[in-house]
Amino acid sequence: MAAASVHPERTIAELRELAALTSDERGAQRVAWTPTWAQARAWFRAKLDELPVQVEQDEAGNLWATLAGDAPQALVMGSHLDSVPDGGWLDGCLGVLAGLEVLRRISAQYQGCPPVTVRLVDWADEEGARFGRSLFGSSAVAGRLNVAWVSRLVDTKGVRLVDAVREFGVAVETAEQATRQIAHARAYLELHIEQGPVLESLGLPLGAVIGCYGIERHQVIFNGVAAHAGGFPMHLRHDAFLSAARFALAVREIAKRHGGVGTNGRVRNAPDIPTAVAGECAITLDMRHIDPQRLQTMLTEARAASEQIASEEGTTASWRTIYQSPPQPFDPTLIEMCDAAIREVNVGRSHRLPSGPGHDAIEMAWAGVPTAMMFVQSVRGLSHNREEDTRAEHLVLAVRAFDRLAEKVIAWLAGDQRAAGAATS
Amino acid sequence: MAAASVHPERTIAELRELAALTSDERGAQRVAWTPTWAQARAWFRAKLDELPVQVEQDEAGNLWATLAGDAPQALVMGSHLDSVPDGGWLDGCLGVLAGLEVLRRISAQYQGCPPVTVRLVDWADEEGARFGRSLFGSSAVAGRLNVAWVSRLVDTKGVRLVDAVREFGVAVETAEQATRQIAHARAYLELHIEQGPVLESLGLPLGAVIGCYGIERHQVIFNGVAAHAGGFPMHLRHDAFLSAARFALAVREIAKRHGGVGTNGRVRNAPDIPTAVAGECAITLDMRHIDPQRLQTMLTEARAASEQIASEEGTTASWRTIYQSPPQPFDPTLIEMCDAAIREVNVGRSHRLPSGPGHDAIEMAWAGVPTAMMFVQSVRGLSHNREEDTRAEHLVLAVRAFDRLAEKVIAWLAGDQRAAGAATS
Repeated sequence: MAAASVHPERTIAELRELAALTSDERGAQRVAWTPTWAQARAWFRAKLDELPVQVEQDEAGNLWATLAGDAPQALVMGSHLDSVPDGGWLDGCLGVLAGLEVLRRISAQYQGCPPVTVRLVDWADEEGARFGRSLFGSSAVAGRLNVAWVSRLVDTKGVRLVDAVREFGVAVETAEQATRQIAHARAYLELHIEQGPVLESLGLPLGAVIGCYGIERHQVIFNGVAAHAGGFPMHLRHDAFLSAARFALAVREIAKRHGGVGTNGRVRNAPDIPTAVAGECAITLDMRHIDPQRLQTMLTEARAASEQIASEEGTTASWRTIYQSPPQPFDPTLIEMCDAAIREVNVGRSHRLPSGPGHDAIEMAWAGVPTAMMFVQSVRGLSHNREEDTRAEHLVLAVRAFDRLAEKVIAWLAGDQRAAGAATS
Repeated sequence: MAAASVHPERTIAELRELAALTSDERGAQRVAWTPTWAQARAWFRAKLDELPVQVEQDEAGNLWATLAGDAPQALVMGSHLDSVPDGGWLDGCLGVLAGLEVLRRISAQYQGCPPVTVRLVDWADEEGARFGRSLFGSSAVAGRLNVAWVSRLVDTKGVRLVDAVREFGVAVETAEQATRQIAHARAYLELHIEQGPVLESLGLPLGAVIGCYGIERHQVIFNGVAAHAGGFPMHLRHDAFLSAARFALAVREIAKRHGGVGTNGRVRNAPDIPTAVAGECAITLDMRHIDPQRLQTMLTEARAASEQIASEEGTTASWRTIYQSPPQPFDPTLIEMCDAAIREVNVGRSHRLPSGPGHDAIEMAWAGVPTAMMFVQSVRGLSHNREEDTRAEHLVLAVRAFDRLAEKVIAWLAGDQRAAGAATS
């Protein structure tokens, strides 16, 4: 085998090049199914053209580059070029361009024919920024795109998703034919910025993702008695907002106790005026945990807390489900390998953490493809805006570690236990 | 003196007559400076025409009926015929029509010439429902109408207040000439529904009002760090909404401790979405107390609580004043008489309570006229909607007690201590 190595500085230069091409003063504008997104993909395809890979767009709009190997079994690396409006320079495209660099190294190392097939995918519309449906392309490949529901989606200007995607060669009704893409997939790897503060708080550049949180999202409506802010003494009130306030504080304690997260992000009083005690308060609850039992316990405790508080306050609590998604654990073997790869480039230190935000990797894991993700530190945990950043030295470590992970997985898939290293020992 | 007495059933019948004339299926529509309000006033003037009184509209649009007495010193009874849109059948007009009935009794009893002058006023635009400026007429008479500010007011259709009132013979710039109306006023009495639940909770029909709450109304803005609901673990959050939630609960304790009221009626998170920890939360604070020192202490403690909570939560709290109004105590002698009058009709039971909502009586007290108010029980404390109600037997007691109060005040003003009764003993 030829000695080959990745050049992380090239990845950083390409990330900057892409940002210059597809951002304005407010940030990245690579919103899926828009001309700027198409521009990003055309730029990316030109990069792929320099490699001995087959490039194709599947029925769901995902862009695949395939480096055929000795065996059809495939390692898939992926992420997304699309961004939110006014987005950052790393969310999504880091994973695609790091994957490109790793693909270059593999192609060079194996003279265009690795022991297993290696593929790089740029998923279509991970963000769902325009139509509100995230993970469009990857969920189609996973076989769980709800065609009827997706067909009803329109953007803020009234354009239908079905019409917008047609301009990019996608027919919603046949999108799930893209499931064939993962027929031979034996591992899926994704590098992404953390979009949270955990690695920074630990002083670590990289972490191995153990899976994606399950989500329980509900609206909780407290009903009390609306009253004049002057005319009603405190002891005769049934203030719906105070019930919601106590509930939010209880949710925090529940989340802390179980090692999950709980958020009350949206709150609305009625009447919503300074001179009235709220007769109704609707508050959203978003609870997440990596463990399904604990998530269920958190939900049960939150329900009990809402009822206890309502009973004490003389109000009522009613619940309405907004969204539920079970936890999606990643593959233990691949997590081990990811951890080992991080330790190798980062003087022995790694950290395992769950992912709060959703990623295309969830869809791959759901579809049964052994999956792992690697996180690189986000400065101040910021994302989805132009302040999003990761230190250059951390990006360098990320590309190196991701490359080592890919090599470990190739060795593993090729049956070479020793090359796969500590991960399978 | 002729033996004369009030006929409360007539007052109830007239209230129903007025409601039939000026309400629709959504409630009373006697909004000031509208044709329906003019209709209510024309109906009222026709009633006054049956009495030996002089009727005039002053420069601020208030309607005065004067029963000249032996002395120019005047007892003034008043309230307002105007209502909020979709209002109730009692708010305001009960006081005017009970005053009319008392005026009839006094006129009959003294054969048209009581020992002191007795006047009944229908204040213009107590509610401020159309232009957002309540107590228009009474504040003009008190000499504290801010002409420049009032001149800028427009309704939701863009009609200026100055133009609307001109159609009713009022010029804003000369409105304060109406201050002459209270040159001889020596007492002001107002009967009103409680618009709160206190009397009902005590099982009492009537109460003596000790004054109007002072008000401190502010917006408190907590700033934390916006974050992804999934990506940020609990211990690294600075959730602005949780600061506001703790603050609202602290406000309740402060209000309870000092015997005042405190309300957080309006709350707004930013971003206001289920999947984000609030980076900012703006919450309104409305605190009221009858005692200026205690109101000040409540405010000081609320400020300290906001700072303490912000410091513990890693957020900041900033304050912006919306509205401030000092407490307005009523006249101790008149409160005594009011209490005595209530006890005489209500088998010895009365209750003293502050008024949360504002009333024209505040303006009279502020202007230095000895003032008292009598409250009659509101069913469930409801007001400002068509559900507003008071039981007929309570209305009967209210008219009788208010009549006794008026007679006590006449005797007091005429120098007859014995007739003024227990109140001055």
